[in-house]
Amino acid sequence: MTLKATDLPLGFTYAARAAGIKKSGKPDLALIVADQPVPCAGTFTTNRVVAAPVVLTRDRLRAGLCQAILVNSGNANACTGAQGLADARRCAALAAGSLGIAEDLVAVCSTGVIGVPLPMERFAGQIPFLAAERSTEGAEAVARAMMTTDAFPKVVARRVTLGGRECRLVGLAKGAGMIHPEMATMLAFVMTDATLDSVAAGDLLKTAVSRTFNRITVDRDTSTNDTALLLASGAAGAPLLDADGAERQLFAAALEEVLQELAKMIVRDGEGASKLVRIQVDGAHSESDALTVARSIATSALVKTAFFGADANWGRIIAAAGYAGVELDPDLVSIHFDDVVMVERGLGRDAEQEAKATAVLKQAEFTVTVDLGLGSGSAWYYTSDLGYEYVRINADYRS
Amino acid sequence: MTLKATDLPLGFTYAARAAGIKKSGKPDLALIVADQPVPCAGTFTTNRVVAAPVVLTRDRLRAGLCQAILVNSGNANACTGAQGLADARRCAALAAGSLGIAEDLVAVCSTGVIGVPLPMERFAGQIPFLAAERSTEGAEAVARAMMTTDAFPKVVARRVTLGGRECRLVGLAKGAGMIHPEMATMLAFVMTDATLDSVAAGDLLKTAVSRTFNRITVDRDTSTNDTALLLASGAAGAPLLDADGAERQLFAAALEEVLQELAKMIVRDGEGASKLVRIQVDGAHSESDALTVARSIATSALVKTAFFGADANWGRIIAAAGYAGVELDPDLVSIHFDDVVMVERGLGRDAEQEAKATAVLKQAEFTVTVDLGLGSGSAWYYTSDLGYEYVRINADYRS
Repeated sequence: MTLKATDLPLGFTYAARAAGIKKSGKPDLALIVADQPVPCAGTFTTNRVVAAPVVLTRDRLRAGLCQAILVNSGNANACTGAQGLADARRCAALAAGSLGIAEDLVAVCSTGVIGVPLPMERFAGQIPFLAAERSTEGAEAVARAMMTTDAFPKVVARRVTLGGRECRLVGLAKGAGMIHPEMATMLAFVMTDATLDSVAAGDLLKTAVSRTFNRITVDRDTSTNDTALLLASGAAGAPLLDADGAERQLFAAALEEVLQELAKMIVRDGEGASKLVRIQVDGAHSESDALTVARSIATSALVKTAFFGADANWGRIIAAAGYAGVELDPDLVSIHFDDVVMVERGLGRDAEQEAKATAVLKQAEFTVTVDLGLGSGSAWYYTSDLGYEYVRINADYRS
Repeated sequence: MTLKATDLPLGFTYAARAAGIKKSGKPDLALIVADQPVPCAGTFTTNRVVAAPVVLTRDRLRAGLCQAILVNSGNANACTGAQGLADARRCAALAAGSLGIAEDLVAVCSTGVIGVPLPMERFAGQIPFLAAERSTEGAEAVARAMMTTDAFPKVVARRVTLGGRECRLVGLAKGAGMIHPEMATMLAFVMTDATLDSVAAGDLLKTAVSRTFNRITVDRDTSTNDTALLLASGAAGAPLLDADGAERQLFAAALEEVLQELAKMIVRDGEGASKLVRIQVDGAHSESDALTVARSIATSALVKTAFFGADANWGRIIAAAGYAGVELDPDLVSIHFDDVVMVERGLGRDAEQEAKATAVLKQAEFTVTVDLGLGSGSAWYYTSDLGYEYVRINADYRS
């Protein structure tokens, strides 16, 4: 999408630059700055190996206030030891100095190659220019500067009317590989001019992430740098969201929409992916069982290669459901590809149905619905196909 | 390997045929027959979706006695409902009739496409010929008839002297895809002329499987048909193995060697695999933690594509260790590729070491050693690389 200036929440400025961190010379360093310290919340990777910027940002966000995000691509600052943490602190200090704000109001996020020290001279040289060049319209440029193997920038904007005031949300994300978030995707930032406190921001973000970023997979590899941040400027002049009010539901829905669209973009742009597939599991004993089965199907290499080959190989889908570890009776399972019935209560349908199913699988987007026939629990997961391009991109990512 | 007649345990006969179950016209139906009912044990898939032959064979083996195994490739008889179970019973009955033995002494095993009824007329027409054609030398022909996408038959023979008598073991296995056994690989049969009771056979098989077949992965997909069987004829005339005797350890070691070799063959023949990689994890708090980390690294698509590209991308290895879910401090982790040190206590080594590591990764077989630096727990896992061929084979397996 191309953002219009009027799509953007009030109270934020943006800037992006090519700082030479990426060999390609493409933009790789960016700033998001709120006009004043604002309520903020974050979710972070569950990987035990946590990158230095995540350690720093997670700690700083405990106070619930933030004014700036400094983000770079091309280098993850992960597995870089004590030097990595010192570098992350120094990055934040450089940004704080250029912006004239307190250091602990700066969040830092990094994405890229693991195990290489940050080129600190690039940061020192470029951050003052970034700070000076900020504009209210640079959000899309920030999304571009966050890209690594991404084929396109990921930006979503939504509006919601709260207390009679039109509020805006804009979400920026990156991610194409090492995608199986279990907390948040590689990097996602949501800015809004709605009025929230940091507790509400945390609750709302956590719920939305659990239904969006935590339900996508490209390669089942959870990254060391996953971070999602929500910053609320309140600049639209809407009243503070009530804990239980109807307007909180409106905002929650808008936030979930932003994250869901970003999450789907990430899968659509999955490394080597040519298809976006929704795995919908119905009829489970519980939502949790349904999610476990959906995740198992969504991460199966055999299912994903069958999607790539447009092969309506439902046996692989049932097998992946079967090893998910939850109760399941194959004789009760039904499977649809979009609206084409392929399996009805455990038995496969005829060649005519299979030809129709194959046609569905040739589409760029489709839904596989698996009904377990046991109860009323439902959940979904988004996944990509697995094709030659995934191998090509990842067999030698670093060269 | 080419089996010599003297490699084979006494007391068994074998036959294999092309019954037309596979479209290719290659051998696809085989019999293994003991001269009399013998002690027997099995391990089976943990998939909740269990193929009909597994249901039948698992039930029959509870009695601890078996005289014949009927095995077919080309059709898994999985997700075939009540008809599938009736077909499996009828297969066993046909074999029992041709051999003149009791039905419940026949185990049946199937592997191939899921969700298609067995072509029963092929079984009825061919089983009498199979029964008539048995010879003591046909073990390798059976291994060939078990193949689906396998590039080569998997046969391992070992000898062990027990009570002054030379005993033999022969193991036959198939498997190249849908490999992440968690109980046993697709199909593996071990015949021995040592003397065991069925309780000992069960204990010995379970231990050996947990250290061999349950530590390999090709694509993290656990099949619906995994079965490993051990049949002990006692025909070598050795005394019954003691529960605690030293000779039981000798036999256990020989059995583990047979299963380990078969397991490595399966990974080496993994669909699209060009490399066999041992992931050795040392220095964990416990063996169980080490195994969890080894499995996580071995199943990472990013690690496996890096192996394919001979990219010494240790960041992906640490990331996969980090999301395994066990305690881990990245600053203590060291990583070797064979004997090349690539990471020492959390920090990556220089370009010179990386060039040496790349040379290791170009080999057809190598070991990645990950030392967590925490304790004395060790474990290993065998995995393959992930390349274009895996995608090619699986994008349209059924056509």
